[in-house]
Amino acid sequence: MDSLVPDLPSGPLDVYRKKASFNWKEMLLFIEGEEIIAYKKRVFQTLENDPLFARRPGEDIPLEKMRELTFLRVKKLFSYDFLPDEEVMANPWKASVLSNSLGMYDWSCNTKYFLNRGMFGATVASSGSARHSEFVKNIKAMKIFGCFALTELSHGSNTRAMRTTATYDPKTQEFVINSPDFEAAKFWVGNLGKNATHAVVFAQLYTPDQVCHGLHSFIVPVRDPHTLLALPGVLVGDMGKKLGQNGLDNGFALFHNVRIPRENLLNKTGDVTPDGRYVTPFKDSKKRFGASLGALSSGRMSISRMALTNLKLALTVAVRYSATRRQFGPLDAEEIPVLEYQLQQWRLIPYLAAAYALEHFTKTIFMNYVEFQMGQVMGNKSDHQADLGREIHAISCSSKPLASWMAQRGIQECREACGGHGYLAMNRLGELRDNNDPNCTYEGDNNVLLQQTSNYLLSLLHAKQHDGVKIESPLHSVDFLDGYQTILGNKFTATTLEECMEPAVCVSAFQWLVCFLLEESQRRLQQQRDAGLEDFEARNNSQVYFCRSLAIAYIDQNCLKRFYDVTFDPDTPAALRPVLKKLCALYGLWSLSNHTATLYQGNYLSGGRPAELIQMSILTLCSQLKDDAVALVDVLAPPDFILNSPAGNADGQLYKNLWSTVMQGSQVLERPSWWKEFCSDKPVVGSLRPKL
Amino acid sequence: MDSLVPDLPSGPLDVYRKKASFNWKEMLLFIEGEEIIAYKKRVFQTLENDPLFARRPGEDIPLEKMRELTFLRVKKLFSYDFLPDEEVMANPWKASVLSNSLGMYDWSCNTKYFLNRGMFGATVASSGSARHSEFVKNIKAMKIFGCFALTELSHGSNTRAMRTTATYDPKTQEFVINSPDFEAAKFWVGNLGKNATHAVVFAQLYTPDQVCHGLHSFIVPVRDPHTLLALPGVLVGDMGKKLGQNGLDNGFALFHNVRIPRENLLNKTGDVTPDGRYVTPFKDSKKRFGASLGALSSGRMSISRMALTNLKLALTVAVRYSATRRQFGPLDAEEIPVLEYQLQQWRLIPYLAAAYALEHFTKTIFMNYVEFQMGQVMGNKSDHQADLGREIHAISCSSKPLASWMAQRGIQECREACGGHGYLAMNRLGELRDNNDPNCTYEGDNNVLLQQTSNYLLSLLHAKQHDGVKIESPLHSVDFLDGYQTILGNKFTATTLEECMEPAVCVSAFQWLVCFLLEESQRRLQQQRDAGLEDFEARNNSQVYFCRSLAIAYIDQNCLKRFYDVTFDPDTPAALRPVLKKLCALYGLWSLSNHTATLYQGNYLSGGRPAELIQMSILTLCSQLKDDAVALVDVLAPPDFILNSPAGNADGQLYKNLWSTVMQGSQVLERPSWWKEFCSDKPVVGSLRPKL
Repeated sequence: MDSLVPDLPSGPLDVYRKKASFNWKEMLLFIEGEEIIAYKKRVFQTLENDPLFARRPGEDIPLEKMRELTFLRVKKLFSYDFLPDEEVMANPWKASVLSNSLGMYDWSCNTKYFLNRGMFGATVASSGSARHSEFVKNIKAMKIFGCFALTELSHGSNTRAMRTTATYDPKTQEFVINSPDFEAAKFWVGNLGKNATHAVVFAQLYTPDQVCHGLHSFIVPVRDPHTLLALPGVLVGDMGKKLGQNGLDNGFALFHNVRIPRENLLNKTGDVTPDGRYVTPFKDSKKRFGASLGALSSGRMSISRMALTNLKLALTVAVRYSATRRQFGPLDAEEIPVLEYQLQQWRLIPYLAAAYALEHFTKTIFMNYVEFQMGQVMGNKSDHQADLGREIHAISCSSKPLASWMAQRGIQECREACGGHGYLAMNRLGELRDNNDPNCTYEGDNNVLLQQTSNYLLSLLHAKQHDGVKIESPLHSVDFLDGYQTILGNKFTATTLEECMEPAVCVSAFQWLVCFLLEESQRRLQQQRDAGLEDFEARNNSQVYFCRSLAIAYIDQNCLKRFYDVTFDPDTPAALRPVLKKLCALYGLWSLSNHTATLYQGNYLSGGRPAELIQMSILTLCSQLKDDAVALVDVLAPPDFILNSPAGNADGQLYKNLWSTVMQGSQVLERPSWWKEFCSDKPVVGSLRPKL
Repeated sequence: MDSLVPDLPSGPLDVYRKKASFNWKEMLLFIEGEEIIAYKKRVFQTLENDPLFARRPGEDIPLEKMRELTFLRVKKLFSYDFLPDEEVMANPWKASVLSNSLGMYDWSCNTKYFLNRGMFGATVASSGSARHSEFVKNIKAMKIFGCFALTELSHGSNTRAMRTTATYDPKTQEFVINSPDFEAAKFWVGNLGKNATHAVVFAQLYTPDQVCHGLHSFIVPVRDPHTLLALPGVLVGDMGKKLGQNGLDNGFALFHNVRIPRENLLNKTGDVTPDGRYVTPFKDSKKRFGASLGALSSGRMSISRMALTNLKLALTVAVRYSATRRQFGPLDAEEIPVLEYQLQQWRLIPYLAAAYALEHFTKTIFMNYVEFQMGQVMGNKSDHQADLGREIHAISCSSKPLASWMAQRGIQECREACGGHGYLAMNRLGELRDNNDPNCTYEGDNNVLLQQTSNYLLSLLHAKQHDGVKIESPLHSVDFLDGYQTILGNKFTATTLEECMEPAVCVSAFQWLVCFLLEESQRRLQQQRDAGLEDFEARNNSQVYFCRSLAIAYIDQNCLKRFYDVTFDPDTPAALRPVLKKLCALYGLWSLSNHTATLYQGNYLSGGRPAELIQMSILTLCSQLKDDAVALVDVLAPPDFILNSPAGNADGQLYKNLWSTVMQGSQVLERPSWWKEFCSDKPVVGSLRPKL
């Protein structure tokens, strides 16, 4: 283990590292396992040793140059081929590990690579058939480069409303791809801005009889792979600067009756015969369309993990900074690390607890998803498989909001907790915030997605009440709901700090909360319907404070419960259990404290004591964990080269690292090129002031 | 009025504009007044007509170029001289209006200008004496360019701990300015990176007898005004890229025994005689130092206003977007604007209400501050003046957190509410977030500042309890606290939606809340002291959930109360009162809902009904205000040129504006320069994969 994970450099962080209640290497081994530790190490070291991946913290790179650098790095990834197909098959978790390791380095680089190999390549492979195998081969060899074109300028969330058309022409056995107007231009497509030669385009399929068969996906060549020049009829270009991930070239495409061979239809869920008849194994067009959007579901699982990765990086920077930054003290002579302040602990340590909770949560739901996918591939048509699919959908649709919002807020808190130095680009907190931000939006806006989860829960309650169906699910995330009537009679029972810091208290409180919000949401919906509203409106008017809160409480509960189970798991090393239990309790109480008002509203809490207990427990846990905080981020942190943030370096030499990075900046001491504009050419003050 | 404020262009926003319950021009006139409307118009039009100020939404400008552009624009501002001294004297509010108008265009440009003229120039003028008048003249003529150098690499919040020294040498009648090491380098100094010729440097003053007289400010030349080359002994440079405001050159300086004339000491609060004796009119060194940091207090007032300005811009973009973006609908055929969704209303409209509340609040506290400053200038030594100073300090220290956090959260919500299009740099929400972010940090970290406010409130309670001093203050923001025992007996009394939507309900609830948190904070502090903790620790351990919440509740209450008074003010036009009252109620209830748990905890609320009433009132008010939302942002919005966000254009032609801005991008349709790297030089997949 020591050869695999070397000791961290000695320095100002030693004080805290020595005070840690656990061995950080043991924790690392427990969380990652030896194989993954070695794998990550290989990826990280390869990047660090390759001059193409060299960089300087906070460097200012023009957009066009960032696109180029990212492409060149992605190309190099083909040569490194860190994860051949057989290795993913053997251990699918490695796909996530690779993605997050590359993302720790730079999300643009990772996303550009995965959009081509994963989103584009996998969609062609999984939505197509044998006739598309040549494409698959060419993608893997980088002969062609692809993208996934669903969103249009005027439509995103409402996927079914996309307006691009694909009309079959039996005379030439071709599809004619057309954008009716610029509002239907494909928009936001990653890799399409500068690079893509081919796009999987989602378009409304029309047969010669003018019948529309709904959205289907087609492989549409957009640029000549030999020249990267746009093909005739395709207006394709770069959308320009985004808030982040600017190494990735997002683009648009407008199609003017572009003809593609009939075979370019990805025909797994529906096909058109040479003479123009539509054939599909699906009776229900909604189900067919759902099946073709499978890539988005796995996307949501990945995004939860991506968001967590950002949070880990931000916490590494902020905790190491807080342990080395000293400001004020009980005596004028000696200042204390800001991590010693209760307020700083309260700002950061709950997010650290959340990172540990999410680490376990996002990994286990990924594994559940893999299990589900295996079933799909094996053609499992059982009820269990269908139920698993529904449950995973409900979980993934709420885990993305949970993780992406947690990361977004956590990164912002880390930025502020690092004061001015957090505002320096070199410390990377801005980049993390900017790169994490779209996680709240793509593959489904967070708020819109939460409705999928609440719909799932409401449908279970409905089935129980109307058809006596027991509420249970393959992953057991909803099983407790079956006893909702009993649970709703429960009250908060902890009366001492010790009791309140038992994680079980939070698990019970969250179960009550989900039951309460489920019943309230149902009541609200019914009220709206009773008032004569149509379903569309009734649902819209039941989101705020009801269905939305329900979905959030459900996923909070699920994440907490999984973490809670780990603290009891016999496979969890005894030496780690105490700290994990504290993290679990803190995460639970802190999440619960967002819902305190509802707990009072439903009379689960009453009087001043419970809220006070929860608050004091949070502060006590923060204080108990502050000496572990540095070791806890040591477990999550990548090597310094990857972290790329002087304030977060493992050696804790805060000021030396900041200072030397500043001094290595470009033109740092140089006189500005425009000095004469100041020195010689003086303005006449007020000379341009209009005479009134 | 119509010639001063032209009608907005007709288009897709007409629908909402016609449904508005009030005349937006009347509201504009009420809020701004004719003089300010005309003044802003002149500033905006001047910038729009000057090619130097031309720009393209979302353009990608290298750091060095941004510094140059910003300098050139600032130089042009000297020629425009929008606000000669006599005009500020006649109407001090115009200084704020100019700053925010320039900030709406670009904060870097405004900050660079004001740091030189205001922060540097005003400090020299107000902290110095007659012997510094030549400097003041040269600043106004741009012969020299200055900056304000307080913060050091290792110290920010703890201002008194700055380590730069100024040792008086009577032989040459000079001060020797020295940085003991790089950790004491001046850091984060705006204008110092590339441009400043002079700095106001805060340093520990030592007389020849080795006595340290604490921090004083000195004018230190750092660059030759004829060459912009660094002067001997000064290591001065650019800190590099920040998260935002990159047109402003923040810098550092390390002084190696730099000698400056004795007269360069800004000697208003303390001086050294030629032979080396220290003289000061202040007996208490803390008071002397406090007086010399006056610029920071006025800075905090300005920052509250700056933050509000950012929020206004973000809301303009998000509300106009939401009124024109359509997604889903009750019928498949027709989609509805996303502003029609309750969830979208709830995400945005409370921030709109907050913007109106803050508009009034930040303006009136500015006026209070002007009154206070007049008193200072007139040498008013009355108790009233001293009390006013303390109250304004308490208000400004909490108004900056209130406004900057409100803006930061609001902008993030606006970004997310605009979906993917909010992530395009051209729509400016990222820039607003990045530029607003430091408002949470500079001139005092928000969390640290809040302690000033709670200390003030606790000292009032202490004086009442121990010395029977009545709690009252010149601006009456604390008067209600005198009756805290009675107020603590109150309960929430609204029982219907109508009652709950009366703003007075929130005012009462907030008064109870402040009283409750004040008493709880005092109790907590006492507990800590009783447990044997020193004052430093006792205070640190009483911030979270107590003093911090107290300061926030106090300023929430103050902001709400001032807005509430407007709705009853006879000067408020009758036609505007209904919408203002709704905004006030919404702002109050929504702010209050952040404190619901505490209201239950202290038994001000009990049972499920009050929380439900508050929630339903918020939703009802959002729904009542959604048809006013577009008109409400029309009042706040600058002209399109200044807003610089295609999604927020006044014509509401969302997609046309987005599309044409994308198409006007640089190299948008061009093949990338690196095309051969894709087309010819193919990677050999896995060629660099290590053989394991």
